[in-house]
Amino acid sequence: MKILIKNALIYPMTEEAAAREEPCFQGNIAIYQDRISGVGQIPEEGDFDKIIDGTDCVAIPGLVNTHTHGAMTLLRSYADDMPLMDWLQKKIWPIENLMTDADIYWGTLLSIVEMIKSGTTTFADMYIMMDQVARAVDESGMRGVLARGMTGLGANGEKALLESVDFIKNWQGKGEGRITTMMGPHAPYTCPPDFLKKALSYVEQLGVGIHIHLAETLTEVADIEKDYGKRPVALMDEVGLFQHHVLAAHVVHVNEQEIELLADKKVKVAHNPQSNMKLASGIAPVAQMLKKGITVAIGTDGASSNNNLDMIEEMRTASFLQKVAAMDPTVLPAYQVLAMATRNGADALNLTGEIGQIAVGKKADIILVDFHQPHLYPHHDAAAHLVYAAKGSDVKTVLIDGKVVMENRQLLTLDEERILYEAEKCTRRLVEQVN
Amino acid sequence: MKILIKNALIYPMTEEAAAREEPCFQGNIAIYQDRISGVGQIPEEGDFDKIIDGTDCVAIPGLVNTHTHGAMTLLRSYADDMPLMDWLQKKIWPIENLMTDADIYWGTLLSIVEMIKSGTTTFADMYIMMDQVARAVDESGMRGVLARGMTGLGANGEKALLESVDFIKNWQGKGEGRITTMMGPHAPYTCPPDFLKKALSYVEQLGVGIHIHLAETLTEVADIEKDYGKRPVALMDEVGLFQHHVLAAHVVHVNEQEIELLADKKVKVAHNPQSNMKLASGIAPVAQMLKKGITVAIGTDGASSNNNLDMIEEMRTASFLQKVAAMDPTVLPAYQVLAMATRNGADALNLTGEIGQIAVGKKADIILVDFHQPHLYPHHDAAAHLVYAAKGSDVKTVLIDGKVVMENRQLLTLDEERILYEAEKCTRRLVEQVN
Repeated sequence: MKILIKNALIYPMTEEAAAREEPCFQGNIAIYQDRISGVGQIPEEGDFDKIIDGTDCVAIPGLVNTHTHGAMTLLRSYADDMPLMDWLQKKIWPIENLMTDADIYWGTLLSIVEMIKSGTTTFADMYIMMDQVARAVDESGMRGVLARGMTGLGANGEKALLESVDFIKNWQGKGEGRITTMMGPHAPYTCPPDFLKKALSYVEQLGVGIHIHLAETLTEVADIEKDYGKRPVALMDEVGLFQHHVLAAHVVHVNEQEIELLADKKVKVAHNPQSNMKLASGIAPVAQMLKKGITVAIGTDGASSNNNLDMIEEMRTASFLQKVAAMDPTVLPAYQVLAMATRNGADALNLTGEIGQIAVGKKADIILVDFHQPHLYPHHDAAAHLVYAAKGSDVKTVLIDGKVVMENRQLLTLDEERILYEAEKCTRRLVEQVN
Repeated sequence: MKILIKNALIYPMTEEAAAREEPCFQGNIAIYQDRISGVGQIPEEGDFDKIIDGTDCVAIPGLVNTHTHGAMTLLRSYADDMPLMDWLQKKIWPIENLMTDADIYWGTLLSIVEMIKSGTTTFADMYIMMDQVARAVDESGMRGVLARGMTGLGANGEKALLESVDFIKNWQGKGEGRITTMMGPHAPYTCPPDFLKKALSYVEQLGVGIHIHLAETLTEVADIEKDYGKRPVALMDEVGLFQHHVLAAHVVHVNEQEIELLADKKVKVAHNPQSNMKLASGIAPVAQMLKKGITVAIGTDGASSNNNLDMIEEMRTASFLQKVAAMDPTVLPAYQVLAMATRNGADALNLTGEIGQIAVGKKADIILVDFHQPHLYPHHDAAAHLVYAAKGSDVKTVLIDGKVVMENRQLLTLDEERILYEAEKCTRRLVEQVN
């Protein structure tokens, strides 16, 4: 399949484009099979199977959601405005315990529908019954970096570990390469050092990265300090975690020395501003982390703590929150935030070289954002429009792995109505059972 | 004209509904001319001229944007990520100085298109050349509370004051009552006490309220303290401002005593969280103000400091920002935020009794939000969906003053394409002139 996207305003998000006075230009993008084969002034007369008109559209690399729990869409707005432990113990965990394969499958598909429709082309997921998540990713045409979330307390730890190993072996590289996997120890406070060391031995064997929650709340920091006499970052370093590729979600409560250490060890950070705000976890020192050279990417977290999976909204909040926290309107400017949600996302998921940029040889994960919208008029700086004014609903057309998965807001690989119906049905059953 | 909205999930936002276990119910809304004539189980067999199907929709009072500068949409994404004074002096003011009647007219119409399409039915505007703003409001079917922004420094003060008086006399109650007016002294640091006292004498004469920026930045507080030996709130109290209906925008930097005073004087607050974040002004103590009984409503501020006019997004940010600032996930729960954007908005604009609720006798300013969207599935708490997950683009149908101004996302009173075209043309001319 040869596709041409013509006449779009293109943000390649490459280092080379960033160095130019204008990091974007009007042009065409050629795609051959799953990869980008040309960017620039490509003549339309090539032998294209399909031509997509990009007039009035801005083309950017598909957005990379570096931390979520897809199937938690079933719990969107199920329980809000509650103290954290009440929320988890009384509402979230009891209903999660009832979830079946079907719930995970339809819940994940619902999350994929929402993500594609708001411009996300890759997501990093950590949850349970991951075969169902992988199945949903495989069928949808989405790109996913998947980890079986493990807690290492009690007898379930060993079981989770073996399931993780099986999952990685079964799914790594599947879905025409759209599926990659990670080891997913949940967090320092749910995975003791001995358990983590066991997980690390498998990480080494299997050659995968690690997806973990780190320093999310003050409670976590206090509990770890009480139990181990050191803070979470130091504990994870001591355990040997940082000798591998680590995608650390949240990283809210870290001090200057910890930031230095994370930078030194090349730990990648998934920043989840809306979840951190909604759950009152705190404000991550993102501006400082970026200044120290840490790769900070963006994630939405699950839909029960957000409550949507809209990466455009998340970019906006990431920028605004840092500006007010630093009392400096110049931090996290629009173009940098766009890089966090694309190029940095690729790096955080160990997919640099593959996704996150519109450049020859990269996977064709591209979104077209329709700028013919009242809230995107008049036309000034397009990066500022994308980050500060656009909506997920402005995403018009989405390509993943060279395949058009949404065109003019119509999903082409998924039966949207069926998914809404099934997800609703699963949820009604769960709510009935839990009450 | 008799209209029936049938089978919607209705949030009346009345005190009575709030006191019930469920503040919403499935039902119908009848409208006769400009007012709501029935809410509840109204039979469809009435003599209706039009029936609007509310299936899958949530009906709420139209959102009230209590602080904006509509025509500044022309400057959306024109200059971002800059230090405040550089931004104003080098970018915003030079281009504002070139604006003509046509710019204000088309810029305001662009803002109205955007506002209606994201569910706002009333806006409080403070800007210049307000005859053009009023003309745009009149023609569009929008509801507006309009104030000529005045600075009292130099010779322009007197001129602005006389223009304000004329504007109020000419436009109060026009547009079938959709237009009301206020006196608009810009801010304590641009309007010295003598000027404010002159403005107050007109306020008394004309019986209007006052729309002012108050305690927006630390610089304002420091400058006023230096010049007058007291903080802005005390200075405004001393001048006599608070003896009238005051809509104070921002109110970021106020201490406990000042909050007490504002509560005591029944000053109404327009909270603009996204502007305060983007410009790094600070975090307003909204939770504390609400606790003290202050009417806190929500506004977007102008599109050059936001950069859109989406009140749904603004509700979400208002809640999230307070939660993380207070480190308490229970503050500003969804339903309360919905009240801030509707009922409190009406109160802040001195329109209580007229708008802000779906109840018999109120003006028929109603929006239908389409919940058949992937990011609004499955169906749990609808208020949480509205505030935490919805997008402006989910607004399906909008009624203002009993008139359908948008149906199935098509504007019925405005030529959207013409407005986008003219606003773009005005902007290109301005940018060319300023460079």
